[in-house]
Amino acid sequence: MRFKLTIAYDGTNYSGWQVQPGKNTIQGEIEAAIEATTSQKVKLHGSGRTDRGVHAAGQVAHFDIETRMTPRSMLFALNSRLPTDIRILSATRAKNDFHARRTAHSKEYRYVLFNGGILPPCERLYAVQVHRPLDMELMRKGAERFVGEHDFCAFMANPQRIVESTVREITSFTISKRGSFITFRVRGNGFLYKQVRSMVGMLIRVGHGQEKPERITELLDCKAERTARVPSAPPQGLTLWKVWY
Amino acid sequence: MRFKLTIAYDGTNYSGWQVQPGKNTIQGEIEAAIEATTSQKVKLHGSGRTDRGVHAAGQVAHFDIETRMTPRSMLFALNSRLPTDIRILSATRAKNDFHARRTAHSKEYRYVLFNGGILPPCERLYAVQVHRPLDMELMRKGAERFVGEHDFCAFMANPQRIVESTVREITSFTISKRGSFITFRVRGNGFLYKQVRSMVGMLIRVGHGQEKPERITELLDCKAERTARVPSAPPQGLTLWKVWY
Repeated sequence: MRFKLTIAYDGTNYSGWQVQPGKNTIQGEIEAAIEATTSQKVKLHGSGRTDRGVHAAGQVAHFDIETRMTPRSMLFALNSRLPTDIRILSATRAKNDFHARRTAHSKEYRYVLFNGGILPPCERLYAVQVHRPLDMELMRKGAERFVGEHDFCAFMANPQRIVESTVREITSFTISKRGSFITFRVRGNGFLYKQVRSMVGMLIRVGHGQEKPERITELLDCKAERTARVPSAPPQGLTLWKVWY
Repeated sequence: MRFKLTIAYDGTNYSGWQVQPGKNTIQGEIEAAIEATTSQKVKLHGSGRTDRGVHAAGQVAHFDIETRMTPRSMLFALNSRLPTDIRILSATRAKNDFHARRTAHSKEYRYVLFNGGILPPCERLYAVQVHRPLDMELMRKGAERFVGEHDFCAFMANPQRIVESTVREITSFTISKRGSFITFRVRGNGFLYKQVRSMVGMLIRVGHGQEKPERITELLDCKAERTARVPSAPPQGLTLWKVWY
């Protein structure tokens, strides 16, 4: 039977989601907890990878297993074995046509900047400091330009990587400010490798007046040269917030 | 001349404020940063100790040094040398009659509980999970009973310790809830060793119906036996919020 897990994690102490030999990864920890619980080796399929240092509030994954355990007892068993920086928020049975990656129809990411004097120490692992003042209106104008269906080729970290298509649709991109914290909320039907961090990196340049919001439209759909890509923003500000099916 | 520092820290990776041989401490890190900056060994006087795992948003400390450095350049120099989990928020000159501990007239501590299903991983170092539901009204009634001038002998972790007096005044003690997070804010003219964590531990028992709010009045002023003291709440929920002079 197929189990669907909703998972939250603090990515600080992990080399990202995906299993890599000799590294601590979220997928690896959860697969080990499932094996310790059920004595069965399974492969856990996530909705997508997250990079080293990136967090999740609602990552989704599935795995197949023959067991009499209820989803509820699976949830308690896994949480009792997992380190406290990884928590299973819910476990449910899923139909066999459910697939954490393939049947996801949209995702939300959030990115948090601190645009003030001194980053509070207890926020240092979850927000990224930007020293010079950022213009909220310019960044909002820039964010609007990302909304819609576009070829995001210029906002992918590794353009050499073979992907079927670099066309994605952003359905909303909002920016809010509370005190010195600025939160970017972006939702779309899927995201390329490092796309969110590249878009945020570009919006920081826009907020500093180094780029005009119109520049985003020039870069979208590969209308400008590819080498114009901006550095992606650091990982610790990013959280995979929610996946919809 | 005397410098006054306002300091924030994430206490997770430290054995508390006070210098101890062979241990990482906040005081030790800052004294080392001052020495690296000025080539002078100084003693840093904090407003009070914080225990292992306890955080600060506004600890205050002073030290004496002969230097031509301005407070502003001291602040930048120290922050550039300190680890990112300790930040100097402000540095100013202080008069010679200023003393971080002796002239403090009140302090505020905050304590955060998570009273819900699963503690979000990114909050695990800054909030303490309590599983069973807590009754907010009972806890508020209990908190009110702490307000005023009392002998807090029963709410000190180590009653054998020699202290001049165990009489302190609590000027306000409020409890607020936001989602599953419950924040205790307590302000007073001074606090005994582990007093805040003992009071919060007692209020958790009150919130669970294990003790009546009236029990607090019985324990105050040592009207009840000392062995009735409750276990103190864990350190990671506690933050030294502000010190007034």
